[in-house]
Amino acid sequence: MALSSDRLLRAFRSEPVDRTPVWFMRQAGRYLPEYRALRRDRDVLETCRHPEEVVELTLQPLRRMPLDGAIVFSDITVPLAAIGLPIRIEPGRGPVIDEPVRTRSDLERLRPLEPEQDEPYVVEAIRELAATLSVPLIGFAGAPFTLASYLVEGGPSRDHARTKALLFGDEATWARLMEALGSIVVAHLRAQVAAGARALQVFDSWAGALAPEDYERGVLPYMRRLFEAIADLGVPVVHFGVGTGELLASMRRAGGSVIGVDHRVPLDVAWERVGTDVAIQGNLDPAALLAPWEVVERRARDVLARAGGRDGHVFNLGHGVLPETPVEHLQRLVELVHRVSERTTA
Amino acid sequence: MALSSDRLLRAFRSEPVDRTPVWFMRQAGRYLPEYRALRRDRDVLETCRHPEEVVELTLQPLRRMPLDGAIVFSDITVPLAAIGLPIRIEPGRGPVIDEPVRTRSDLERLRPLEPEQDEPYVVEAIRELAATLSVPLIGFAGAPFTLASYLVEGGPSRDHARTKALLFGDEATWARLMEALGSIVVAHLRAQVAAGARALQVFDSWAGALAPEDYERGVLPYMRRLFEAIADLGVPVVHFGVGTGELLASMRRAGGSVIGVDHRVPLDVAWERVGTDVAIQGNLDPAALLAPWEVVERRARDVLARAGGRDGHVFNLGHGVLPETPVEHLQRLVELVHRVSERTTA
Repeated sequence: MALSSDRLLRAFRSEPVDRTPVWFMRQAGRYLPEYRALRRDRDVLETCRHPEEVVELTLQPLRRMPLDGAIVFSDITVPLAAIGLPIRIEPGRGPVIDEPVRTRSDLERLRPLEPEQDEPYVVEAIRELAATLSVPLIGFAGAPFTLASYLVEGGPSRDHARTKALLFGDEATWARLMEALGSIVVAHLRAQVAAGARALQVFDSWAGALAPEDYERGVLPYMRRLFEAIADLGVPVVHFGVGTGELLASMRRAGGSVIGVDHRVPLDVAWERVGTDVAIQGNLDPAALLAPWEVVERRARDVLARAGGRDGHVFNLGHGVLPETPVEHLQRLVELVHRVSERTTA
Repeated sequence: MALSSDRLLRAFRSEPVDRTPVWFMRQAGRYLPEYRALRRDRDVLETCRHPEEVVELTLQPLRRMPLDGAIVFSDITVPLAAIGLPIRIEPGRGPVIDEPVRTRSDLERLRPLEPEQDEPYVVEAIRELAATLSVPLIGFAGAPFTLASYLVEGGPSRDHARTKALLFGDEATWARLMEALGSIVVAHLRAQVAAGARALQVFDSWAGALAPEDYERGVLPYMRRLFEAIADLGVPVVHFGVGTGELLASMRRAGGSVIGVDHRVPLDVAWERVGTDVAIQGNLDPAALLAPWEVVERRARDVLARAGGRDGHVFNLGHGVLPETPVEHLQRLVELVHRVSERTTA
């Protein structure tokens, strides 16, 4: 029988568990009053440079509910800011970079990341969290395509048009951009595991903007290299994106021991697409948590039913917790998932 | 042999054509300098109230390239503004409504639309265009779900979370909202055909935010009623949405004589999902037009190859023309589609 502190890692590895583990993307977030009180309106990147605040923000949701994992409070642009790119996070908008990266010569600004020197605050926060937590700490990074999208567009974008135009039209520059970002991401992920993270998640949040063939040509090879470059760490890696229904099989081939699925593809269908030899994470629609509790419960039970009690399911939302989410709904959801999924024999 | 002026309607009806017809969503748009000169930074809704400007904006792209159809310059929120909802279009952001529609009592603000009284400028512009144009005029409307999303969220949204929470959690209010919007949309579409539009497109742009089961329960029944309520008009109707890979079969069952497909699903795959007894419109990625011409050409030829010269293909982009698009690329694209698709016998 698994200890509850093991539950998440065992499920990530498709091993039997006593109950389905649950954590939430953006569980350290604005829906918590104690988060808003601590963060106020400061730039996320500024907060990330203060390990004591990172530790506190990471721990806040765990004081509220018995989550099976903690995800370090951070932002996917942290390693980009750490190598000196002029990035800021605008409240209500997202990451903004005033001088976008669009040409061959712009690529010179993407120097390699040396975590101990460039982002010691990341390493320090994770060391402290690893020493404190009774559940596994999840480190994370943005995937090269998703990071490229911010760098090329200069900010959040609905269409990712300039990024895709670069991918479609200038293969050599695109390759160098993806390789440079890939090596930054690998260094960032390795540093987190070295400091004590016991699992990783790679967010290719906007890969769903691509048609399958473009993903295969312009993203998959770099993702495969990325997963290979961290394989020796021996930690489970979740590979997640939004609106990736058409891409799930390709993402699976790219790598990751766990495929994160958004709410648009029912879990049983998703598992068919990625194959049952890989673990799966998801996928309650975060919008459901804004509806009455009965709706949350019915839909959460449906997610569990579609997972069918199979080994290798980690319960999560289809995307991050929304700021308007009632704390109580998340608390009841954790309790519900644990209760409903309890194995009589395991 | 079809006359070129018939090409679009024949393809919409899956009848043989001499060449694949082509038009572009948002072809009357900001990528044209003459559009920017006329529109300046005024609210789109303000422009829509001046038929002479609507006529001019609609005709502008046709003077630039031999498109097979014209789409009336308008906005999906026009009929909502026409019944008195306080909507404005913020440049660079989109439709904003200061008092969102969220509760049962808010629904009272959604009174029926009487086009001749409420939006005489729409009727007038379409009458004049129908008398002027040598190609078919396409009228359009937003679908109830997509309109609901703006009304409930109060503006553009990435997550459509409150809208989905209403759909998930309050079936009775949701039904009344969808019915009220459905009847407004039907009146708006019927008025356009009465004034001279020879085809229609219904934009359910954001339906792709929903999982299939939620679409089936909360959207499909209302879409079916909508299509039934305009069936007697005898004009082809395109049913379009973005990111709808998971929903294509459901959208087909909901209705429409043509299914509009975005760039994420290759046309041959899309046609398998919707069935070959319906016409299909799409689907070059609008971002491709920002790449060098060789890339545009290669990708456009791929779209045509996937359509396989089958009757019932209308060439379009996967979404609207982007403001950064070079005019010359669109001009060359129209020429290319006509040339490459020319039937030796038809």
